[in-house]
Amino acid sequence: MNFDPKEFRRALGNFATGVTVVTAQDPEGNKVGVTANSFNSVSLDPPLVLWSLVKSSSSYETFEKSAHFAVNILAADQIDLSNNFAKPSDDKFAGIEYTLGVGNSPILKDTTANFQCETHQVIDGGDHWIMIGKVLAFEHLGSNPLLYVQGSYAGAIPFTGLTATSQNTTPTDTLQRLNNNAFYLMNKVLQKIQENYLPKQASIGLNTSEARLLLVLSDTQDININTLKDLVTIPETDVESGVERLTQTGLITDALTLTAKGQDMAARLWDIANQQQDDIFGDFSEKEYDNFKQLMQSVLKQLN
Amino acid sequence: MNFDPKEFRRALGNFATGVTVVTAQDPEGNKVGVTANSFNSVSLDPPLVLWSLVKSSSSYETFEKSAHFAVNILAADQIDLSNNFAKPSDDKFAGIEYTLGVGNSPILKDTTANFQCETHQVIDGGDHWIMIGKVLAFEHLGSNPLLYVQGSYAGAIPFTGLTATSQNTTPTDTLQRLNNNAFYLMNKVLQKIQENYLPKQASIGLNTSEARLLLVLSDTQDININTLKDLVTIPETDVESGVERLTQTGLITDALTLTAKGQDMAARLWDIANQQQDDIFGDFSEKEYDNFKQLMQSVLKQLN
Repeated sequence: MNFDPKEFRRALGNFATGVTVVTAQDPEGNKVGVTANSFNSVSLDPPLVLWSLVKSSSSYETFEKSAHFAVNILAADQIDLSNNFAKPSDDKFAGIEYTLGVGNSPILKDTTANFQCETHQVIDGGDHWIMIGKVLAFEHLGSNPLLYVQGSYAGAIPFTGLTATSQNTTPTDTLQRLNNNAFYLMNKVLQKIQENYLPKQASIGLNTSEARLLLVLSDTQDININTLKDLVTIPETDVESGVERLTQTGLITDALTLTAKGQDMAARLWDIANQQQDDIFGDFSEKEYDNFKQLMQSVLKQLN
Repeated sequence: MNFDPKEFRRALGNFATGVTVVTAQDPEGNKVGVTANSFNSVSLDPPLVLWSLVKSSSSYETFEKSAHFAVNILAADQIDLSNNFAKPSDDKFAGIEYTLGVGNSPILKDTTANFQCETHQVIDGGDHWIMIGKVLAFEHLGSNPLLYVQGSYAGAIPFTGLTATSQNTTPTDTLQRLNNNAFYLMNKVLQKIQENYLPKQASIGLNTSEARLLLVLSDTQDININTLKDLVTIPETDVESGVERLTQTGLITDALTLTAKGQDMAARLWDIANQQQDDIFGDFSEKEYDNFKQLMQSVLKQLN
């Protein structure tokens, strides 16, 4: 094992996950909740799920005493909830809406699903405990889930057929209907752009959250890390590790300003973004392109 | 435990994940590879990861003998690879490009990341084995990962700031720059649409893959399940469970045709899709709307 644990963590970020808040309440009424993306299913019969909790967590005692936990799967509009349970606080539940589920575990409101478990087994997993739960009850709403991908919060767009796979042979009627659906077309365009864009970004050595941090810092002055955390839709730990990496690679200073190398890199990132726009909209006249942006802006206003 | 295991599986689908192909090769040269979304990180120090393998899997013996495995995290354009390793086959590696990594585990080409492990511990997890690996080597490219969400393949769109969270206070310069970026605007519009759309779809009791199956079946005639599998960008097991559920709820017949109830439901789904378009593009004139769709179609042509 001659590799850098931070680089290992960056690599792990390429496996996209949902975001959960795992909660419990012990017999004395102490409530805990931790943001975790290590959740996954294990078994259907018996119904088992698992997640991992860092051994140094002060919440472990309550999880142990309560012998139950609930996994709350966050919806796309619950970034605030994720941030709230990711950072230490005297009372993480202040102002949070919840009910009590099986074993008194707090069930958060308006999530996309929850799984209410009794602790089935706790396994030593290096610097974490692997917590295996037997699911006693669950609820699901099917709303759009919040994602965590390459150090950034993200949303999912379901892939629809039409040339997505080589075997795909969508009937003509369906193709016509899809090609006449603006939502479908936008979805498809964004898929293509993402596939095209990310390799270019990665080729200059930054992941999504690091690239965004650099661009935000290139646009701000006299910023401190706490303001930066509020500014970007990136989990706090990724802001910290991202800033550390940008500093170590000589792109920013300790004062969170860009070095000359950092300014070059930010310029390259904007070039990639602009080039991307040219690639996509290059065939449009200036007027068509402006119209398109105005359309998008008015759609956004209507949706907000 | 008085709940339906199929409903439990549907609920678990609300936790979005990446898609991996886990591979191994035993000393006799037998190679195995299985598509799995149960991967997750466990520990940074020592570096541990885990995934789960159904106990009935014929691949288990090879995983056991090889004492190593590699987790290949698929990129968004590798749906074919996911499908290939998800179904039984005499030689899953026929025509697949790979090299051999640590412990001779096959490393698939052009994935977004891979983790090469020695088997650290195998834990009994109900109907699955929980396979914990110690990571000896890894590689990552940072390309756009393939996702599995609510029974469907999907892609990720990273959330960018701008009113995404209540604390967000993006500087004016950045706001202006973002508002002038067509890619950013489309991304934002699609996020909003998704948040808006999925609850409506879920309110009629179908998840993403079931809704899509019903719509595809409403558009096709004399189809069998194998053709259906080729037609939709949905993992095979979800096509099977989706068809089963649509049959049980009386929406389709055993011959994969829509019942009267199914036709009503499909009409409601199209209504939701059309209503959604009206909500978004309602303020546009017919001509503006047609222009927009033409723009998207020409962009798509350019990107393909």
